[in-house]
Amino acid sequence: MTNSREPSDPGFEQRVRDSFGRQRLMATLGAGLVRVSAGEVEIEMPFADHLTQQHGYLHAGVVTALVDSACGYSALSLAPSGTEVLTVEYKVNFLAPARGDRFVARGRVLRSGRTVTVCSGDVVALVGAQATPVAAMLATIITVSASSAAGAAADRA
Amino acid sequence: MTNSREPSDPGFEQRVRDSFGRQRLMATLGAGLVRVSAGEVEIEMPFADHLTQQHGYLHAGVVTALVDSACGYSALSLAPSGTEVLTVEYKVNFLAPARGDRFVARGRVLRSGRTVTVCSGDVVALVGAQATPVAAMLATIITVSASSAAGAAADRA
Amino acid sequence: MTNSREPSDPGFEQRVRDSFGRQRLMATLGAGLVRVSAGEVEIEMPFADHLTQQHGYLHAGVVTALVDSACGYSALSLAPSGTEVLTVEYKVNFLAPARGDRFVARGRVLRSGRTVTVCSGDVVALVGAQATPVAAMLATIITVSASSAAGAAADRA
Amino acid sequence: MTNSREPSDPGFEQRVRDSFGRQRLMATLGAGLVRVSAGEVEIEMPFADHLTQQHGYLHAGVVTALVDSACGYSALSLAPSGTEVLTVEYKVNFLAPARGDRFVARGRVLRSGRTVTVCSGDVVALVGAQATPVAAMLATIITVSASSAAGAAADRA
Repeated sequence: MTNSREPSDPGFEQRVRDSFGRQRLMATLGAGLVRVSAGEVEIEMPFADHLTQQHGYLHAGVVTALVDSACGYSALSLAPSGTEVLTVEYKVNFLAPARGDRFVARGRVLRSGRTVTVCSGDVVALVGAQATPVAAMLATIITVSASSAAGAAADRA
Repeated sequence: MTNSREPSDPGFEQRVRDSFGRQRLMATLGAGLVRVSAGEVEIEMPFADHLTQQHGYLHAGVVTALVDSACGYSALSLAPSGTEVLTVEYKVNFLAPARGDRFVARGRVLRSGRTVTVCSGDVVALVGAQATPVAAMLATIITVSASSAAGAAADRA
Repeated sequence: MTNSREPSDPGFEQRVRDSFGRQRLMATLGAGLVRVSAGEVEIEMPFADHLTQQHGYLHAGVVTALVDSACGYSALSLAPSGTEVLTVEYKVNFLAPARGDRFVARGRVLRSGRTVTVCSGDVVALVGAQATPVAAMLATIITVSASSAAGAAADRA
Repeated sequence: MTNSREPSDPGFEQRVRDSFGRQRLMATLGAGLVRVSAGEVEIEMPFADHLTQQHGYLHAGVVTALVDSACGYSALSLAPSGTEVLTVEYKVNFLAPARGDRFVARGRVLRSGRTVTVCSGDVVALVGAQATPVAAMLATIITVSASSAAGAAADRA
């Protein structure tokens, strides 16, 4: 097991940005990469009416999508060149209604292994400069060869 | 604890449909309620390019939003009149890439209590008539008075 | 992905029983294997005073240990010869107090892949013939070569 | 929602110690309370042969029991007098084999509400002074009146 935050791929930031650019959902959410470092990634999005639940707050699924991507890219930032990452599972606790002007999700690698990476994530809602924690995630991600991840026969290992 | 599937609110189906209609995200996803019974709800959506991850499959966050809503509404279908439900947390395992023409999420109440409801959910991807399981959820939902759920001071209990 | 319940190792039952026999904790709990089939395993234990929480019910950690082993062995029953399984993570919902004379945990494989297996599990408490569901689990397990699982340098992959 | 770490019960430490003393499982594990502060609790136990899995490491269920109790008592440390806490659910990721001389579990309150408390926990394995993280937990706990928690008709709310 390596817990070092030394990226094995020096081009990790560009690689994360390229993959993020291919996630059509991120554009649909209006989300952008704020920060990409080795083992930690932040994504931000504004509030939007078309993404709400029945009380007018951001839908839990959108909050989850944001922090899932943040966790996944924190894992990818440490993955060797020629590999891809797949989310095996995650758990999210919702701490407060997702009410705010903007939302920032952060993903961090807790444990980086050859096959299994464990990440923790959180989301804060911002009203002006005031931040309220709205979600906490614990996620399991696996690293696979790029060909098996993208291929038509991909089986999520 | 009551595990009976007797809805305490005879108007439960209309109530679920009204609340679903207020979830702007469901319209954004093109999702519709397929079936609403006491303790079990199904939601369906078509594949859409603007909701994809980097390999062109449906984003895990979208799959999650769909089954979160199915679980939440299965809980609401058994909740007393004058109450609302809030998702406290969930865990999702992804079983296969979310690749298909349509996606059907089902939520089912496993345990219904005065405050805490536990639901299980699953999502299948459909290519024609062939269904592939793509996700499994286990969710915790709480029942609160309608006023505290919607109010400006809502604190998710 | 294979969801077939064809065990790849015809000697799977003996293999499960041998491994179970090496789990010293199972003996400490007084637990025994009730049933071992391909992809599904049941474990039973009696109530015991020395395993309780503060209200005199079985401790949640004991309930978890029981269903963790049931899930792990359901995964092992489908694993190729020469491999071992490791629990990557699990989530458990507690549905009722673990109050009873005996407890039966069942693990079932939901999805069996080359590397990742997903299992669901449940535990019932028995008072005479009456069974009350007390816990539901969703677990992620990986298959590794037997040498890496047991070796001093094992890194859980 | 209050995130303050002000205990509402000034006698919280004694209350935690009294309840811990009634958990027969903790004695069976040889576990002891290391530290009890408002919103954070540490529990320690030595390695023991009778608590192992098939490779001779501490069983995942034992690791879980330890950190479940640490999380539950961190929640109890902030709960009003006359109430009890019940674990609704938890998720645990296993980060490395539970191999060591001693194990220290820490539980911390992430979010404290009137009904729902969310805690994070972790476990480290110690060989001499060297600590290796072996598990991470995210747990949901509810606060109920002491009478309903202990009563014969308790329904976990």
